[in-house]
Amino acid sequence: MISKVKNAMSTLVGGMMPHGHHQHHGSGNVHHQNCHQDGLPPRFPYGRPEFLDLTPELLQYSTEHASRPVLTLRRDSRLPWRTGYAETINAGKSMLNEDQASCELLYVKKLSEKKQRNSTFLPDIPVFQDGTGIPLQYWGVFDGHAGSGCAIMASKLLHRLIRDRLGDIAHLLENPSTAPPICLAKNGSPYQAEGKKGANAIQDPEEPDAITDPSIRFHTEKAVSLESLIVGIIENSFKQMDELIEKEKVSYAISGGCCALAAIHLMGKLYVANAGDSRAIIIRKKEVIPMSNEFTPESERQRLQYLGFLRPELLGNEFTHLEFPRRIQHKELGKKMLYRDHTMNGWAYKTIVEDDLKFPLIYGEGKKARVMATIGVTRGLGDHDLKVYNSNIYIKPFLSCCPEVMVYDLSKYQHGPNDVLVMGTDGLWDVTTDREVADAVSSFLSCCEPADPVRYTLAAQELLMRSRGVLKERGWRLPNERLGSGDDITCFVIPLSGPAGPET
Amino acid sequence: MISKVKNAMSTLVGGMMPHGHHQHHGSGNVHHQNCHQDGLPPRFPYGRPEFLDLTPELLQYSTEHASRPVLTLRRDSRLPWRTGYAETINAGKSMLNEDQASCELLYVKKLSEKKQRNSTFLPDIPVFQDGTGIPLQYWGVFDGHAGSGCAIMASKLLHRLIRDRLGDIAHLLENPSTAPPICLAKNGSPYQAEGKKGANAIQDPEEPDAITDPSIRFHTEKAVSLESLIVGIIENSFKQMDELIEKEKVSYAISGGCCALAAIHLMGKLYVANAGDSRAIIIRKKEVIPMSNEFTPESERQRLQYLGFLRPELLGNEFTHLEFPRRIQHKELGKKMLYRDHTMNGWAYKTIVEDDLKFPLIYGEGKKARVMATIGVTRGLGDHDLKVYNSNIYIKPFLSCCPEVMVYDLSKYQHGPNDVLVMGTDGLWDVTTDREVADAVSSFLSCCEPADPVRYTLAAQELLMRSRGVLKERGWRLPNERLGSGDDITCFVIPLSGPAGPET
Repeated sequence: MISKVKNAMSTLVGGMMPHGHHQHHGSGNVHHQNCHQDGLPPRFPYGRPEFLDLTPELLQYSTEHASRPVLTLRRDSRLPWRTGYAETINAGKSMLNEDQASCELLYVKKLSEKKQRNSTFLPDIPVFQDGTGIPLQYWGVFDGHAGSGCAIMASKLLHRLIRDRLGDIAHLLENPSTAPPICLAKNGSPYQAEGKKGANAIQDPEEPDAITDPSIRFHTEKAVSLESLIVGIIENSFKQMDELIEKEKVSYAISGGCCALAAIHLMGKLYVANAGDSRAIIIRKKEVIPMSNEFTPESERQRLQYLGFLRPELLGNEFTHLEFPRRIQHKELGKKMLYRDHTMNGWAYKTIVEDDLKFPLIYGEGKKARVMATIGVTRGLGDHDLKVYNSNIYIKPFLSCCPEVMVYDLSKYQHGPNDVLVMGTDGLWDVTTDREVADAVSSFLSCCEPADPVRYTLAAQELLMRSRGVLKERGWRLPNERLGSGDDITCFVIPLSGPAGPET
Repeated sequence: MISKVKNAMSTLVGGMMPHGHHQHHGSGNVHHQNCHQDGLPPRFPYGRPEFLDLTPELLQYSTEHASRPVLTLRRDSRLPWRTGYAETINAGKSMLNEDQASCELLYVKKLSEKKQRNSTFLPDIPVFQDGTGIPLQYWGVFDGHAGSGCAIMASKLLHRLIRDRLGDIAHLLENPSTAPPICLAKNGSPYQAEGKKGANAIQDPEEPDAITDPSIRFHTEKAVSLESLIVGIIENSFKQMDELIEKEKVSYAISGGCCALAAIHLMGKLYVANAGDSRAIIIRKKEVIPMSNEFTPESERQRLQYLGFLRPELLGNEFTHLEFPRRIQHKELGKKMLYRDHTMNGWAYKTIVEDDLKFPLIYGEGKKARVMATIGVTRGLGDHDLKVYNSNIYIKPFLSCCPEVMVYDLSKYQHGPNDVLVMGTDGLWDVTTDREVADAVSSFLSCCEPADPVRYTLAAQELLMRSRGVLKERGWRLPNERLGSGDDITCFVIPLSGPAGPET
């Protein structure tokens, strides 16, 4: 369903976009009824990542779908951690590049009560740049759909939310050898429970044991690691980001939604959080270590069907939570057809009844799979007013803003100059496998001087061009004549040996 | 919560069990209010697997908790597929052995309409033993809790349900090279859709594509493999088994519930279906290949919390779907405590409110983790009338009877005489790791003659004794003085080289 999107953002970049243009969405393909946004100012103006430092002329140049220029850093500028970066716009499916990216060095510090309270509502609090606090290196890629508003907002704010929430536990981060206290008093100091009896204890008078005996139960504590506390903070920051988008849509035009993939380096560990179909892999000694899973209608089918099963009212009498291998025709009533429900991975035959004629909640295969015939990703930020075309059925209840977080302990391995984390939007991975990316980046880097300051940027550029291909008569083509990706492509290549390079 | 269970089965094995004895349940620890079963006959009498062919004296002997005899096949009898088997009773936690096992060679054939209809309600239809049809080798282990009734019933009937359901697609199994038809006419022959327009098509008049254009949509079919049809049949057979237990509880005493682990060999592939905390691994050239995952309150926490979140009425105002690292005391209201909800893998702090004082839906760690302070496994059969102690809150909505099915293609590998599938109840695995089982079985089998007809039975016995240990002054102990498993233990060792042994 190639959709028509009236994008309120379109007036904001001068003459770049005619109003009411068509937008074609790769992973999204969503309809947006954002007419209530008309007249609202954008939360952030359209642009490319600040670190690219584009002039207005270059910004205009970046949108040329015919040539699809590859943007990297200016020759004289550097990203933190020697990070390599490259991006290119799509082949015409949307006027603007709906991908966004961030790369920030932040510092985690205890915030004052007042700042803490404000931070939820006014995330524009000053970024600590004075170099005190615990360093937090952050990378994010955001793949927007149905507009660029959400992706831009998330690229500007998500890392601040994470930094602020980590600030709440700064005192715990400063003592990493001590396990986080289970309970905190209001002043933030550990609270030690003393009493023996609980309020709602369910007790079995005859059979005391660890569960029923309050003296044991109240003092049996599950150990929680600092690492899992950091994971929880990242998870909840994504939720907070999503709530913030919803809240600010009252006052601003924030179009569409976005997939979000963030990597955080904190105290020797890499936390990779993914909500959507972007992808991160580590390449270590040419070996591939996946650092994310994609969340799509196919990978999350059972979660979505389960929700449709438990809450049929969300299906609006138009959809069935059952999956069928194709649409059913009315004359097939009473015949038997393959189906599967939320409990099944296999398929079975069922007799077709009237209800099965509804459109399946999950339909299509691979990149064409959709939730409610509308959206091709099942996790991400935004999409609060996304509805099924020509209906009042909201998609948002089926979408999750919660990332899956994977942790990689950098201190456990020795990393050479060619060991990297690659983060990319689906445009990068749709036409290039993990293995191909690993081989390409490994062989490219092994030909670069280890001390070359732009080696990771050149590697990112190399990867990106491999997926984009070159323009021939029959469109963008890879060397093997297969179609290149027509999507926006964004790619980070991050050295695992860290900002200073490998120890020698 | 060690529970008191009045077991209606107890009168049925002569003087073996006093009425109203205490039963302690390892993985279950469940209460059972089965008073309505009083006076109902058992669906099947208590006993050990038929293939053990026990005399009444041996049956009595098998229940000796003090000596915990290891039962294997009689010297002169053989199981199909040269299967090795061993079992032993628990160390006293329940009067009877609540584990059960089956090993059956069946034949899949098209059933007549009448037999098909009957089979759901009267599963005692005759087993084809005339050797025609497609051979189906089946192994099942069932780990009962709160009584042995469910485990016995499932061990007698599950394989018949699977065989009957496979009978429905016997004509498809006979032509394995043809993909199963998406739609079947009433006579079972493939039905080819012809029309172009659908009934409930959601159409976008402006933007025809694969989803909105009926001519494409109705003819875009997802390919479904025969393998995934067999998986679906196994999944639905577990559901049917669970429904049958519920239905027959009206007329029979069928106590408790059970974990079910089944392996099916059909047409060169091994299908391993697991619902519960039993476990299956393949050992191939000493390498471990897990063939099941355990379903426990910890592994299924997020699914259960999600249900509690979506359907809070199922928590009966006694439980909270949030997880806390320990119980909260009333005086801790207003303080901050670590928690996680259904969306989180990490932990975060939240301010404690009144609702958080309720008992957590999931509580405890490892083998002590419980759903609603009651049950330690989250998938299995039965448990329809299981309630939280002293309440009217049913546990069943949180339990799933759906197995996870893993498939192993035997034809893809060469298997030697020491390559096996090991299936065991949790008693086997609680004290012995996969690696230890693999090492033990590999080194044991490499010392046996490849042609020894009892080598797999001896290997099963070896594994079982490793987990049981020997009785010392301080209980059952392993060679390293660690505690042996006090649970019922059941173990199959199945040669992957098949019934005839490896080709030479």
